[in-house]
Formats: sequence, structure tokens, C-alpha cells
Amino acid sequence: MIIITGSITGRPDTISELMAASLEHVLRSRSEPGCISHSVHRDVENPLRLVFIEQWESPAAVRAHFAVPASAEFVRAAAALSDSPPSLEMFTAMPAGELAAGDIPAG
Amino acid sequence: MIIITGSITGRPDTISELMAASLEHVLRSRSEPGCISHSVHRDVENPLRLVFIEQWESPAAVRAHFAVPASAEFVRAAAALSDSPPSLEMFTAMPAGELAAGDIPAG
Repeated sequence: MIIITGSITGRPDTISELMAASLEHVLRSRSEPGCISHSVHRDVENPLRLVFIEQWESPAAVRAHFAVPASAEFVRAAAALSDSPPSLEMFTAMPAGELAAGDIPAG
Repeated sequence: MIIITGSITGRPDTISELMAASLEHVLRSRSEPGCISHSVHRDVENPLRLVFIEQWESPAAVRAHFAVPASAEFVRAAAALSDSPPSLEMFTAMPAGELAAGDIPAG
């Protein structure tokens, strides 16, 4: 599985539009092949900062996602609503369920 | 590296207290050995749902984090402010930077 975390920071005058564009991107991305999950959140420490969490089945699915014209359009639109470059981290990931056994359920 | 994503959903009458407790937990956790990052966010689709993203250096660091009494106290306090059980997903993860080459910077 591929996990992507990303963020982009809006301005007071753009955050509403940035949230709407982000949510539209999230909902569209969920319907793409290989998308396990895709969601967007506001950082509690900085509500102008939007944080994405995505799970994809494979690197190929991520490449296809990046190649969707609407993805590039979203990135362009989001950049125009932000004063700082977006961040993106990508990971190859495997469930580590065994760690949870006997541990507390969150934290 | 270990990546943890978790969530807990508050109620309209508890969300402020839940956010404050969560942020206190985040800030304390960041100072623990092996914590790479720890943050909390509000789901844009459901602002009552708080989503945590954590990065830890090793399984041992996660086990030590779960064993900190303040972690268990936070889980108990958070559960009392929520009507539903928290969710937790844990992954063994490695940076997949090569995927990003030539791709768009977010999405």
C-alpha cells in the first residue's frame, strides 16, 4: 500500500474556497482505481492548514492518480489560493497490526 | 518508521474539550523518544471527527508511547467525550520518494 500525507495552507480570504476545492478533489479521487481512502482535514494548530491523508493500493495507482487532468487542475487551483508551496510525503506501507495487541486503542 | 492514523468523534457539547485534550496529548507526545511527528486535525467532512497522524521511529517507540501513563489517561478522557469507539491504524512505512519524480507536487 502507498500512504500519502500532504498539506497546503490557505489564507483567511481563501480558506473557504480552498476547502471546497479540496473536498471536491477528495470525493473525485475516491472513485479512482486503487484508491483505498482519501480525506482532507484542518490542522487544529493552524485551521488555515489543510492536511490530506490518502491510501492507494499500488505505486501504479498513485501514478495514474497524478496523471488525471483533474488532479493537476486541483493542484494549480490550490496553489493559487495559497502563499506557500504544498508539502507531500509518500510512503510504502504495510499494516502493523501486531503492535496493537494488548496496547491501548489510541494515542 | 511506524505511521499511526487514528480518529475519535466528539459531540457538539464536547468537541471543544476533546480538541483541547487532543492537542495537549499531541504536544506532550512530540517530546517522547522516537516521535518524529504527531498532530491532530478536524475532518472537513465532519468537524466533530478528530484525526491524528503520528510518525514514530520504531515499534519500540510506539510501545513506550502507549505505556506512558498520560497516554492512557488521554484515551480514557477522550473516550468519555465521545459516543463511539476510537479508530486506530498502524503501519510499517518507508519513504517512497522515487514515486514523486516528475509527478505533480500534491494530490
